Amino acid sequence: MAPVLLTDPAQILELVEEQHRQGKRVGLVPTMGALHAGHLSLVQQSNIDTDFTVVTIFVNPTQFGADEDLEKYPQDLDLDIRQLSTHNVDAIFAPTRETMYPPGSSTSILPPEVAKPFEGQLRPGHFEGVATIVLKLFNLIPANVAFFGQKDYQQTRVIGQMIEDLNIPIEIKICPVIREPDGLALSSRNAYLSPAEREQAVALSKALFQIESLVQEGQRDCAELLMAAKKILADASIHEIDYVALVDKQNLSPVRQVHSNAIAMAAVYIGGTRLIDNIILS
Amino acid sequence: MAPVLLTDPAQILELVEEQHRQGKRVGLVPTMGALHAGHLSLVQQSNIDTDFTVVTIFVNPTQFGADEDLEKYPQDLDLDIRQLSTHNVDAIFAPTRETMYPPGSSTSILPPEVAKPFEGQLRPGHFEGVATIVLKLFNLIPANVAFFGQKDYQQTRVIGQMIEDLNIPIEIKICPVIREPDGLALSSRNAYLSPAEREQAVALSKALFQIESLVQEGQRDCAELLMAAKKILADASIHEIDYVALVDKQNLSPVRQVHSNAIAMAAVYIGGTRLIDNIILS
Repeated sequence: MAPVLLTDPAQILELVEEQHRQGKRVGLVPTMGALHAGHLSLVQQSNIDTDFTVVTIFVNPTQFGADEDLEKYPQDLDLDIRQLSTHNVDAIFAPTRETMYPPGSSTSILPPEVAKPFEGQLRPGHFEGVATIVLKLFNLIPANVAFFGQKDYQQTRVIGQMIEDLNIPIEIKICPVIREPDGLALSSRNAYLSPAEREQAVALSKALFQIESLVQEGQRDCAELLMAAKKILADASIHEIDYVALVDKQNLSPVRQVHSNAIAMAAVYIGGTRLIDNIILS
Repeated sequence: MAPVLLTDPAQILELVEEQHRQGKRVGLVPTMGALHAGHLSLVQQSNIDTDFTVVTIFVNPTQFGADEDLEKYPQDLDLDIRQLSTHNVDAIFAPTRETMYPPGSSTSILPPEVAKPFEGQLRPGHFEGVATIVLKLFNLIPANVAFFGQKDYQQTRVIGQMIEDLNIPIEIKICPVIREPDGLALSSRNAYLSPAEREQAVALSKALFQIESLVQEGQRDCAELLMAAKKILADASIHEIDYVALVDKQNLSPVRQVHSNAIAMAAVYIGGTRLIDNIILS
């Protein structure tokens, strides 16, 4: 059955509450549209774990910096809806900006400590915007479980900690990074890459996989591991590196030796396109 | 029947969800304890409007400034429980500070614009603390209606705007100020007043009532009205005035002429005790 498409906050809330009255478990997959197999894997997980899947499509302006790609962010609602129609989605919530941020709207979430380094430092206000829109969506779609991709790893930590700190009655499920056959993590922003940049971009995941395989071979020293990763990036002529880091999986503080709770994270520019990726080292 | 006393967040959430499953409407009365007839009037309103009333008792540390009265704030849980037992309360939630703010907890609410003047300016961080604890309580006790006293008028506007901005599915009901026979608004902080200060304190409400009666007589000019109110305070030797103001009821911006949406608000010190009061002019 084709999913119900709603744009009115009151209507989506009522629809979700009706599912709860019927004893159904509701799953929420928040997206900014421009859907790819990564998003669809979240939908599939929601189909497994819950009885009623809601996908939200909203390019949230408050999580973009003034010099970022808000206005060119890929949008094709019809294509998104067609994709979701073949994936057993029950409802799509696609509100307008004016609906989500009416004039005078001024409350926001000051995100937890884990939002401060990395993306938080490089993209001031980003996680405040993310936390605020996610909380709003949690309130409009009081789901049992919300599904997020590990690709935006720091985001999953920010949201997880916010849920805990604010006693939000929702379970969060983190789903694995989905990759192209050559390793590149799926991202809506991959659409910005020229063919040459697309070839270059594979070095990002290659660098992280290199860290992983060195760890598996017994290398624990972070300085060594990061050097090896940076060499792969340099060999691919990727010189604009926001960060390549080995950090604690929980609080994102740097580690010197890789332990069982470490994660490798990286953010680089390929031409004008900023890409991020990560690999959990366990 | 005596109310159920709970201290565990998971248990109060489960109890409230059980009421919803039974089709009951739930009312929430958030308090910091030291209950007086003002709080009890909120309970009475909840009994009228809903089927199941939850009162929370929690002296929220994050809404007190470093130099404020957190440690001396009156607390007597047993007395509070006895009072609530005779007022048809179904459940009391009285968590510990450690339960509400476990180590590592760091997310908070950046309150809306309306939090900036008056109390927000004079008590930095106050409304961030209020908004955060209220949101947490809304999540733990997903009530249909939450009851707040008009006595803390700016607080009711901050919470009302937060509910709107964050799409929180709860109705807020503001209940009238309850006063002593001589006019003094009930407040847990009245307990700090010496007998002489208690006599002096009546001038606060007297000043506001004076504004109200002058408006009823046709005086609309705010400068005149405020002068009359300040004279009453001065005559009572109240010289430490944080503010006496005539503002728009909705956004708390100053007005020059009293119109149908104005409110008179005041905050003064009586000895070391800070008291606030307000009167809606309609």
